Amino acid sequence: MIRGSHLSKIYRAGWGNLTDLYQLTMAYGYWKQGLHERKSVFHLFFRRHPFKGTFTIAAGLGLVADYLQELKFSVSEIQYLGSLKGADGKALFPENFLHYLQRLRFSGDIYAVPEGTLMFPHEPLIRVEAPLLQAQLIESALLNLVNFSSLVATKAARLRRVAGDDTILEFGLRRAQGLDGSLTATRASFIGGCDATSNVWAGQYLGIPVRGTHAHSWVMVMEDELESFRAYAEALPNNCTFLVDTYDTLEGVRNAVEVGKDLKKSGHQLLGVRLDSGDLVALSKAARKILDEGGFPDAVIVASNDLDEQSLSRIKQDGGAIATWGIGTRLATAYDQPALGGVYKLAAIEDEQGFLDPRIKLSEQEIKTSNPGKQQVRRFLDEEGIPMGDMIFLQDAPPTQEQFIDPYHRTGRIDMKDADQQEDLLVPIFQDGDCVYEFPTLAESRAYCAKQVSDFDRRTEKTYIYGLEPRLTELKDQLLTKHK
Amino acid sequence: MIRGSHLSKIYRAGWGNLTDLYQLTMAYGYWKQGLHERKSVFHLFFRRHPFKGTFTIAAGLGLVADYLQELKFSVSEIQYLGSLKGADGKALFPENFLHYLQRLRFSGDIYAVPEGTLMFPHEPLIRVEAPLLQAQLIESALLNLVNFSSLVATKAARLRRVAGDDTILEFGLRRAQGLDGSLTATRASFIGGCDATSNVWAGQYLGIPVRGTHAHSWVMVMEDELESFRAYAEALPNNCTFLVDTYDTLEGVRNAVEVGKDLKKSGHQLLGVRLDSGDLVALSKAARKILDEGGFPDAVIVASNDLDEQSLSRIKQDGGAIATWGIGTRLATAYDQPALGGVYKLAAIEDEQGFLDPRIKLSEQEIKTSNPGKQQVRRFLDEEGIPMGDMIFLQDAPPTQEQFIDPYHRTGRIDMKDADQQEDLLVPIFQDGDCVYEFPTLAESRAYCAKQVSDFDRRTEKTYIYGLEPRLTELKDQLLTKHK
Repeated sequence: MIRGSHLSKIYRAGWGNLTDLYQLTMAYGYWKQGLHERKSVFHLFFRRHPFKGTFTIAAGLGLVADYLQELKFSVSEIQYLGSLKGADGKALFPENFLHYLQRLRFSGDIYAVPEGTLMFPHEPLIRVEAPLLQAQLIESALLNLVNFSSLVATKAARLRRVAGDDTILEFGLRRAQGLDGSLTATRASFIGGCDATSNVWAGQYLGIPVRGTHAHSWVMVMEDELESFRAYAEALPNNCTFLVDTYDTLEGVRNAVEVGKDLKKSGHQLLGVRLDSGDLVALSKAARKILDEGGFPDAVIVASNDLDEQSLSRIKQDGGAIATWGIGTRLATAYDQPALGGVYKLAAIEDEQGFLDPRIKLSEQEIKTSNPGKQQVRRFLDEEGIPMGDMIFLQDAPPTQEQFIDPYHRTGRIDMKDADQQEDLLVPIFQDGDCVYEFPTLAESRAYCAKQVSDFDRRTEKTYIYGLEPRLTELKDQLLTKHK
Repeated sequence: MIRGSHLSKIYRAGWGNLTDLYQLTMAYGYWKQGLHERKSVFHLFFRRHPFKGTFTIAAGLGLVADYLQELKFSVSEIQYLGSLKGADGKALFPENFLHYLQRLRFSGDIYAVPEGTLMFPHEPLIRVEAPLLQAQLIESALLNLVNFSSLVATKAARLRRVAGDDTILEFGLRRAQGLDGSLTATRASFIGGCDATSNVWAGQYLGIPVRGTHAHSWVMVMEDELESFRAYAEALPNNCTFLVDTYDTLEGVRNAVEVGKDLKKSGHQLLGVRLDSGDLVALSKAARKILDEGGFPDAVIVASNDLDEQSLSRIKQDGGAIATWGIGTRLATAYDQPALGGVYKLAAIEDEQGFLDPRIKLSEQEIKTSNPGKQQVRRFLDEEGIPMGDMIFLQDAPPTQEQFIDPYHRTGRIDMKDADQQEDLLVPIFQDGDCVYEFPTLAESRAYCAKQVSDFDRRTEKTYIYGLEPRLTELKDQLLTKHK
């Protein structure tokens, strides 16, 4: 069981068929050609930052590890595959191939960047070195798990940057895409910087702090709002943040103050009020005044209502007196860009002599041409630990000079001689099918992410330099020439 | 087990904690106040069509039914809830309340519209009549399951309208939001009109047809493209649709024709080619010519690459020779609007005398003010079965005159005397906690959806009339006056 993953806790389904059909038809093709055990290298990477941003947070690795540990074909999965037919009505897969699948376990190596690492386009987030059939089969699940998690972790980190020390609550369950779309979003939101969630599943299965008090319906059920707050305080005196906008927001704040006085008398406290509609700047200022004058300077104003980093930033600039933000739809679905276009590309394949032969995927768009060979990413940092630039290099030909080229705007070489420290970002996660990485807790990944973003923000340069080590550029040029 | 749902097949997790924490704190509050068994009525509805469209397809009901049948609190869920603390460090929930939860099962009534029904703003998709605590607890799951499913079914129906009789394949697994975000999207896409999916889980757990052949990596692994097509044809002669754009698209089509000739000789056929990049109009025309001249007029051209209903429509208008569309990211994430803002609002609550007391939620925005009372939707159709308009009315006060008011543009009453038929859209799904509805197969829901959309498209009027029966308007006005 992988720490900080919910997959094997909540799913009972087999994992083999968690894939696209073409991975299985290719798997059969490789097997039939005797290529299935050739060692292959694939990289998972993205080509553009989401949200027109300047960074992307890698996330989802814990889920990937959980999946790889659980990966096998159950009897019912094999039976289903055996029932599939081709265009001629005959079986798509022969029996002996299905027997092979039934014995299959993941036996490869995985290198990856820890969750919470700040990453740039074309840099591998994961490098898979595995028998070809296996490396191919796992593509769909790896992309699903890493694309969405990284997207939401990035969104949360962007919110955290704007929110400063404010509290951020993730409220996305009701609008998330599917049940574990929600759970996965909650997990990634936490890594990216959220403090807690409304999602009780996430509390139970991932240990993420949960928060929540009451909805409009609580108020509507009772005769009036004041009575409803009193009733709530009677039941849960240690959890009193009142939602105040069911009928009239400021009247609601005054009712909260009334009940706050009763709470005080019984040794409890009014934790805050929540605004869920209207002009949040004006209402929060007015609410703050009522709370302060009522003797509740410590009561927190919580706001929710289709918020994202843009609206949060505007509200703060306009002096909104909000200290806790409930972010739902726009975080859990990454509303303004609901998919990260991460891809998974073959970079090398073992030849008949056992040597790794580099491979490239061409495209008319240069950004879609892949980098060949087994890759690693080296990050250069200055004496204060501030990142200066990243170099993608061939794992088996480590950089001898600290120069590299931005492959997409070949405007000159960058000299990294002045760097004080350097670190290689991809670390071993699986070796020969065994997990060799001790997963941090989600709280540790969250702290690591926060440090990454704040170090990045300490930079004075506007553009961040990332590119290819010269010998990788050379290899890429050779292969481009060969295929064109 | 509910036909056409994957939930109880793939999840092992308990269902009680699949909710937002505030549902549980409110549940405790209701219980503490002795209100938990008061009969309540909630409606699930949306306020605006997604994608700036003119209709919304209801979906997700099968998942809701599966969830309600499975709903109970497991021992580990109860233990987790018992561990939660309030602001004072003391338990949030007392033991006797947790004992109550442990015995809880859903015992209410559910009325809903069948999956695939075409719906309009403010019309209940689901009406819940249940003890208050239960109706409250299930809100989060119902919204999650119905919002996303309806969103994606609507997107698929929009694609189907544009695609005509072309084949649509759903390819979204790798970019979907979470593992069952994918599976749920595949299910809803199928109801909305897709023909098949790449997602093998969806084939196994939902019986949806699966399709797939090979990726770029297959071609890159081999020495050259022609060899790779030959190798594929050798392994899977009954599943030959070749992806032709790894290096040079039209050269790829010529290679496919070469291998197609070999296939013919061995009694098989070249099913088609797939284009995944470049100018799909020009390339598909050129590919069509090569295929026709090569003797393969029946070979189909499949296209994929970030397609949606807009690009599909443009390609068809420009004469693209594509007969099968692979739609991934933009369908599975509903890219241009990744959340449907469906809500779940209290509409009535039993008073101390046992009468149902209607309730309203106010808002400064009229569109966010809810409709009170237990509601039903009547659809009026002309003699050809074409829908003329919908009336929301109070279930216990059926319309006596066929007139109604559009509540958001009170421009006049609509007379439905000329209608030939009428049907009430909400039908019984659960009674006293038991499922009383025989779920159609997904294929039946898909056919129903297609019929709904085509009947709607046969209308000559531009705007569709939907509104409130006069006595419902009157009740709403009364409650508005009372609270303002």
